Amino acid sequence: MAKLGVGVLGVGTMGKQHAQNIRRLIPEARLVAIADADLKRAQQVASELEIEHAYGSVEALVERRDIQAVVVVTPAKFHSAAMRVCTQAGKDIFCEKPFTLTVEEADELLDLTAKAGVRVQVGHVRRYDPPNVKAKQRIEAGEIGDPVIFKSLARDPAPPPVSYMASGVNGMFFALFNDIDTALLNMKFSRGTLGAVENYMQSGYGYDVRTEIVGSKGTIITGYLQQTAEVVLTATGAKTDIVDHFLVRFAEGYLNEMRDFVQTVLADREPKVDAFDGRQAVAVAAAAERSYRDGRAVAVANRARSSRAA
Amino acid sequence: MAKLGVGVLGVGTMGKQHAQNIRRLIPEARLVAIADADLKRAQQVASELEIEHAYGSVEALVERRDIQAVVVVTPAKFHSAAMRVCTQAGKDIFCEKPFTLTVEEADELLDLTAKAGVRVQVGHVRRYDPPNVKAKQRIEAGEIGDPVIFKSLARDPAPPPVSYMASGVNGMFFALFNDIDTALLNMKFSRGTLGAVENYMQSGYGYDVRTEIVGSKGTIITGYLQQTAEVVLTATGAKTDIVDHFLVRFAEGYLNEMRDFVQTVLADREPKVDAFDGRQAVAVAAAAERSYRDGRAVAVANRARSSRAA
Amino acid sequence: MAKLGVGVLGVGTMGKQHAQNIRRLIPEARLVAIADADLKRAQQVASELEIEHAYGSVEALVERRDIQAVVVVTPAKFHSAAMRVCTQAGKDIFCEKPFTLTVEEADELLDLTAKAGVRVQVGHVRRYDPPNVKAKQRIEAGEIGDPVIFKSLARDPAPPPVSYMASGVNGMFFALFNDIDTALLNMKFSRGTLGAVENYMQSGYGYDVRTEIVGSKGTIITGYLQQTAEVVLTATGAKTDIVDHFLVRFAEGYLNEMRDFVQTVLADREPKVDAFDGRQAVAVAAAAERSYRDGRAVAVANRARSSRAA
Amino acid sequence: MAKLGVGVLGVGTMGKQHAQNIRRLIPEARLVAIADADLKRAQQVASELEIEHAYGSVEALVERRDIQAVVVVTPAKFHSAAMRVCTQAGKDIFCEKPFTLTVEEADELLDLTAKAGVRVQVGHVRRYDPPNVKAKQRIEAGEIGDPVIFKSLARDPAPPPVSYMASGVNGMFFALFNDIDTALLNMKFSRGTLGAVENYMQSGYGYDVRTEIVGSKGTIITGYLQQTAEVVLTATGAKTDIVDHFLVRFAEGYLNEMRDFVQTVLADREPKVDAFDGRQAVAVAAAAERSYRDGRAVAVANRARSSRAA
Repeated sequence: MAKLGVGVLGVGTMGKQHAQNIRRLIPEARLVAIADADLKRAQQVASELEIEHAYGSVEALVERRDIQAVVVVTPAKFHSAAMRVCTQAGKDIFCEKPFTLTVEEADELLDLTAKAGVRVQVGHVRRYDPPNVKAKQRIEAGEIGDPVIFKSLARDPAPPPVSYMASGVNGMFFALFNDIDTALLNMKFSRGTLGAVENYMQSGYGYDVRTEIVGSKGTIITGYLQQTAEVVLTATGAKTDIVDHFLVRFAEGYLNEMRDFVQTVLADREPKVDAFDGRQAVAVAAAAERSYRDGRAVAVANRARSSRAA
Repeated sequence: MAKLGVGVLGVGTMGKQHAQNIRRLIPEARLVAIADADLKRAQQVASELEIEHAYGSVEALVERRDIQAVVVVTPAKFHSAAMRVCTQAGKDIFCEKPFTLTVEEADELLDLTAKAGVRVQVGHVRRYDPPNVKAKQRIEAGEIGDPVIFKSLARDPAPPPVSYMASGVNGMFFALFNDIDTALLNMKFSRGTLGAVENYMQSGYGYDVRTEIVGSKGTIITGYLQQTAEVVLTATGAKTDIVDHFLVRFAEGYLNEMRDFVQTVLADREPKVDAFDGRQAVAVAAAAERSYRDGRAVAVANRARSSRAA
Repeated sequence: MAKLGVGVLGVGTMGKQHAQNIRRLIPEARLVAIADADLKRAQQVASELEIEHAYGSVEALVERRDIQAVVVVTPAKFHSAAMRVCTQAGKDIFCEKPFTLTVEEADELLDLTAKAGVRVQVGHVRRYDPPNVKAKQRIEAGEIGDPVIFKSLARDPAPPPVSYMASGVNGMFFALFNDIDTALLNMKFSRGTLGAVENYMQSGYGYDVRTEIVGSKGTIITGYLQQTAEVVLTATGAKTDIVDHFLVRFAEGYLNEMRDFVQTVLADREPKVDAFDGRQAVAVAAAAERSYRDGRAVAVANRARSSRAA
Repeated sequence: MAKLGVGVLGVGTMGKQHAQNIRRLIPEARLVAIADADLKRAQQVASELEIEHAYGSVEALVERRDIQAVVVVTPAKFHSAAMRVCTQAGKDIFCEKPFTLTVEEADELLDLTAKAGVRVQVGHVRRYDPPNVKAKQRIEAGEIGDPVIFKSLARDPAPPPVSYMASGVNGMFFALFNDIDTALLNMKFSRGTLGAVENYMQSGYGYDVRTEIVGSKGTIITGYLQQTAEVVLTATGAKTDIVDHFLVRFAEGYLNEMRDFVQTVLADREPKVDAFDGRQAVAVAAAAERSYRDGRAVAVANRARSSRAA
């Protein structure tokens, strides 16, 4: 079977993980080359992963004929430009979240990639996280009835450096609010379900991501705190450790996600999480920001779902 | 030591529990009489608890000289009138939440009882719930740093009958909204802490009350799901039961609360949870209702803390 | 309804708990008097529980006509003598475990009480502990198939004083072995089920009692570690407290057990846990001791189940 | 850096997992060839893992000069013969447990490999399982004081086919007892620590491996039941799934173990778990069998620890 030739653009913590997964654990893909604005870093990661080619720009990367798909893991503010270059070169795209920094950018890219017939998958790792996948199956099977409330919390152990937040890499809240590391958001979905989301960037205790879907007949809770299956009992009580990093918490999800992208491209299918989904997430974040600034409920700017040109 | 003579007004589920605790488990008190608008019910409970006196009205109850304190557990819409009668008779008062149905009523009662020198404790069982008590101690000791987010959820297994909700017994949301059994509320406290509260009246699976206090150095989670310490492992997975009733979940809290009321009156102290606290809870609920109707953030109507007249 | 008149003999930690339960929480019984070799202690507990009569001997206690049943909670080495006095006086008996110190004593008492038609219930609190009760129901309903292995562990936070152990109060191991505070015991039941029991007297961390019944189709685990429903998350991990005392762990069991005894006597029924069951436990402990001394498997000395004389 | 050339002998479930780990996840090693008595299976696995060479015998495998180490994962009854061939060829050896079927075989191999200067590591995955590794560190750091009791249970969801058990692959109990799938074993270590081990081959609910080390100052519990971090709450209670396979439970342990073997050979170090350790496990199993047959305590046949010849 022909393998999918893949290039990875941006090999910080997240990009390197994607590159490793492609290199070691997805036999259907061949990691052809790595690119990073920091060429030395690209070369270093290429050497660690025992592959030959490293570049300092997306332009150099997309010149390679043996690359059919590019995984974009740059800082968020460069996503848009990088995807334009990939689109022009006819490469299929996997782009880490957030898809773009503004709804306008997102809409332009949606149109552009659809017109060019380029496939775009956006990274939403929870769609591939086993407990969340199972929860979705149960909901679809009716185990908890109709969803009534969706609750989510995401806590990082410590805030990233200012430089990182300035890069807009981790979503709207940091890109737009700058000074905000704690956010509560209530939502009402068009079908009536309520939503409540919490983000906190300095939990102090670990990396904690939990979801709760409350339904008319039951509730599903996903997520976990304990990393190592060890409980210590002493005179001071019972204690366990706590997951400390998102790459630990979502290790399986990231692998499943990238494997699905590779298989999707090879099978010439539509992505499960496409540019439209990425655009909607950006629209929600933008609405949340406006709601915060105006102190009132704000409607999310919608558009009709578009699909990749034939 | 002289015992505190207590009368209980209203012996539905909650009132009967208070009466039992006073009768059996608080030796410093003597349950003198029970009153209920339904005289037969009053007599029935009196008989079960092996006490002599049962009445059909608060007026009859407060005539007894050997009663120094009245526990008001009527439907919420009668709280205000009942407390007026008790105040007039010079009886100290324990009133179940909600204190009143409106802020105006609450303010009037605050003034009235203060002027009469009548002691008022309002029922807020979580203040006496062991995990919440411990959490408070930890927070005061600085274990989790400064509180950043307060989260709370309360889920009942099934909604109460319409008659019950019409009585306004269970707080603002039901008294005012009538048709609402699901509510999400975000708050911002004056010290900057954020709050997120969920109420859901038909979980389908059990009685579930959990709290999470997120601080700058750590987080405390209180509450539990499992009622019986038994895990069953079979081919379909691991399963446990779930707490099914608020009297199970808060059994210890209700006892601690009533014991504290009795000891507070006997020792001639100020209540830990007084009429002012009860009034503030009413004000928050009223603001939540307005916010819901207007689709915007609403400030809580505050007043200065008043204390019982000397 | 006539109440059962009860006397409690021996009011150390355990006896006082039984006395309190009878006095406060079992309306079908009337706690008439307390006796203790230490008369002052008997008087002190009587005063705390607001009852009139306190005695310094079982002989004085059983003279009372208004006492129909005696709860024996003396040190274990006095159980046998106390039960003889009660039997002679025609009082029904609740005796804390261990029933006696030797199989011979147990057999004599079995015969004696059967002949006298005196009802004997032996304290085995786990039979009344909610998770264990539920487990039994499930097993009988076939939920885990045929029992294959029974596992049990019991850990005390710290060993009792030497004086206590010398009194033989807590069972065979301490009475007979003296110097032993850690024991592992494997058993084979006549129906083929295997058993493994652990006892450890100085866990250092708390009071920990767990049971695991492994069946041909599933397993049931009972017991719990956490006392307060509070989890604290900080940079050092997640921590909870641990149950610290057997009266906390088995509070509900002790109440259920005594209530069942009272109801059993009032209804003139056979006890659920009778002298024969108590005798069998003594026989197992004696066999365990012999096995330990001889380094080989030892058969338990059985006798046919006898029932109370008509 | 030169990579370690490795051949894998035996690619059933376990052998294939080792081969995959070497091929994909241990960059310091190169998987050169696979051998299996079933040549077709060897070829199939070689093809899946994208390597060139597949053989039908250990003799063919060890002829390759580019193989420095052989991973032996045959049925247990062939371990001994396979290791003799590897030793003769001067290859370092990783052998899955059990090391051999008898103490005599083990002793011969110990002498033989020591004389030949061949390095032998025996597979004991729990030494590399993160919770067990952490537990060992804590014990060595004195966190729980002196170990008093070691408890272990291992439950398989369903017994393997008879052919598998006849092959002696999974240790003494099955090889020797044949008809036994449930075993309880008590031990006393020379330092005084007690041990209690349970093995059960048909739990019906999942793959469950737990350990408890009870110390003079605290206790450590390792192991877990839940595979997917999802809790479902419905009217029938709370439920989770359960780990179903040893390759899931010990995925990380198997990888850590093989990586350590590769690094040990490359660094010319002594293995952490060597032939002597493997021999001791065989001796314990043999003693357990004798104890079972004779109904009495049996001493383990010891020998002095030997090390690899210089």
